Amino acid sequence: MLTITEEELLALAAGALEGLGLSSDDARDAARILVLGDLFGITTHGVSRLESYGERLQLGGINPRPDIRVEKVAATIARLDGDNGVGTLVGYRALQAAMAMARESGTGIVFARSSNHFGPIAPYSYLAAQAGFASIIGSNSTPTIAPTGGREARVGNSPIGFGIPNPGARPIILDMASSVVARAKIRDALKAGQPIPETWATDKEGKPTRDPKAALDGFLLPIGGYKGYGLALIVDLFAGVLSGAAYLTHVQSWIDVPEEPQDLGHFFFLIDTARLGDASWLAARVDDFAGLIRATPLADAARPILLPGEIELDRLERHRRDGIPIDVHLRDKLAGFAALKQEKAT
Amino acid sequence: MLTITEEELLALAAGALEGLGLSSDDARDAARILVLGDLFGITTHGVSRLESYGERLQLGGINPRPDIRVEKVAATIARLDGDNGVGTLVGYRALQAAMAMARESGTGIVFARSSNHFGPIAPYSYLAAQAGFASIIGSNSTPTIAPTGGREARVGNSPIGFGIPNPGARPIILDMASSVVARAKIRDALKAGQPIPETWATDKEGKPTRDPKAALDGFLLPIGGYKGYGLALIVDLFAGVLSGAAYLTHVQSWIDVPEEPQDLGHFFFLIDTARLGDASWLAARVDDFAGLIRATPLADAARPILLPGEIELDRLERHRRDGIPIDVHLRDKLAGFAALKQEKAT
Repeated sequence: MLTITEEELLALAAGALEGLGLSSDDARDAARILVLGDLFGITTHGVSRLESYGERLQLGGINPRPDIRVEKVAATIARLDGDNGVGTLVGYRALQAAMAMARESGTGIVFARSSNHFGPIAPYSYLAAQAGFASIIGSNSTPTIAPTGGREARVGNSPIGFGIPNPGARPIILDMASSVVARAKIRDALKAGQPIPETWATDKEGKPTRDPKAALDGFLLPIGGYKGYGLALIVDLFAGVLSGAAYLTHVQSWIDVPEEPQDLGHFFFLIDTARLGDASWLAARVDDFAGLIRATPLADAARPILLPGEIELDRLERHRRDGIPIDVHLRDKLAGFAALKQEKAT
Repeated sequence: MLTITEEELLALAAGALEGLGLSSDDARDAARILVLGDLFGITTHGVSRLESYGERLQLGGINPRPDIRVEKVAATIARLDGDNGVGTLVGYRALQAAMAMARESGTGIVFARSSNHFGPIAPYSYLAAQAGFASIIGSNSTPTIAPTGGREARVGNSPIGFGIPNPGARPIILDMASSVVARAKIRDALKAGQPIPETWATDKEGKPTRDPKAALDGFLLPIGGYKGYGLALIVDLFAGVLSGAAYLTHVQSWIDVPEEPQDLGHFFFLIDTARLGDASWLAARVDDFAGLIRATPLADAARPILLPGEIELDRLERHRRDGIPIDVHLRDKLAGFAALKQEKAT
């Protein structure tokens, strides 16, 4: 592992995207969200994602030079066509459009289509919150969850995120998917030879299982059973159906067919909190709220109570101060993408 | 049990509220949401709630003649002061204000404060969807959930609801709270002498328990652990903090202090789907979406795949056709409230 600064990581990621054919401005905007992912320590959704984005850009599955169009359909609503660009670029432009409308009119709603994997949601929620906007943001994704009672993946483990500004202090940010756990946790149990709780996954027949191997051949279970399944459907209805994008099994898998456009959809709902009260009013209320939660008597003295996003915001501070760890192989891979530009030029 | 028509139930509920001091128009509006709750078969959140509303109206805990004020702070955002009125009246007026803004400007956002228990969310989502609005609606509530890692109730089991219109057919509606199960399910296990899954609740020390008795002395667990806890916090931040209402432990318990105003808060986010595409476009997409879900191969041939809200919308049809069952004692109680008006007049 190496340790590099935020500016170095941004230059590395933007350089890779430029090498893969993006314009200089687009590469920088697309890189910002992933770099924030690494700053938050969400390494599975940070610049490491450029490996798969890069493969798809090279195969023609993602368009390196998209003509991203924003069509306003009301003072506070826009539809955005991502023209199959890199998802984090489409997402960043959609966020900017929503912020501009919310600043002007109080609310800003953007439905984006023709997009791809748009990274983690926490960075978008954070950027919105730092600018004073409360937000609800979501995306659909490749189907991996079976409907409650089914035995075939039809619904994505689609993420939804929420952010509340806290002027002068830390915002509160929740970024969650609908599954109880990620597949990686089941793989860990398999390696350790441990059974898994029967709330985590089903086997391929759709029956709950404690066997990690059967679970990996089956489907992730959503949180709260039909509640999490319902939430995953709702995210897809907003992100896919209302946006004009693909939804459910119409979404192409970036793993199985990396050369095909995914036509993912996202939604961004922003509200300017300054319309509801001034910054000191909001700061006093959010501080009091956080204080009430932190003062809860502990079940286990060694385990403090956390607010949503607190772990990620701790890491953000630490990484900005001490640098961000990055795997040498990943650094070399990204430098290799950057070098493609030189090769083409010569 | 008696069976009565929707119009009879509305007259009965509105009559009770008038007897308790509400104006005729307010009584009818406040009753609509509860009657829809019964039509959906959500009997715990239907007209049976008038027993506790009635107790609080009689004790002065709820204001029978509120001056509900809507203050527009942007073309698409309003703050509503419920003046401690009946929660379903405040909620219904907030929904109307949000619908008027969304019809005019594409989106309508209302933050309501100084309210009380506003019934189930599904009726609001349904009314919005039938008028063409996609919605996200939520309310805070009396604290019953301990933060993850805590051993004291600080967060409400706050409901959030979503609705997607389906022009000419059934909307998709999800109305969910953050707990894995309601307390009633734990009481059922206690009666049956059965242990409960350890994901349902903790004992009073905040430790997960399989003993229903210890669970009833402890706290409900949220779905997906920290995910459900985070979601409950977010609902309170939107419904309580941003609205200017009480939040967390500042919310008064309607059970412990029925004579005190609760100062609950709600939020209503509506989007006019007609701005995104015409009715036939949306109907085709939602129908295709529903069809893909219903066609999922079944894990258990006896158990069909359901869409969120499907059970409730089935009951709505059946109850409108065959009448609504109502408990005789409840009918008598409501008739008793209605008779109060006569008594005062004589």
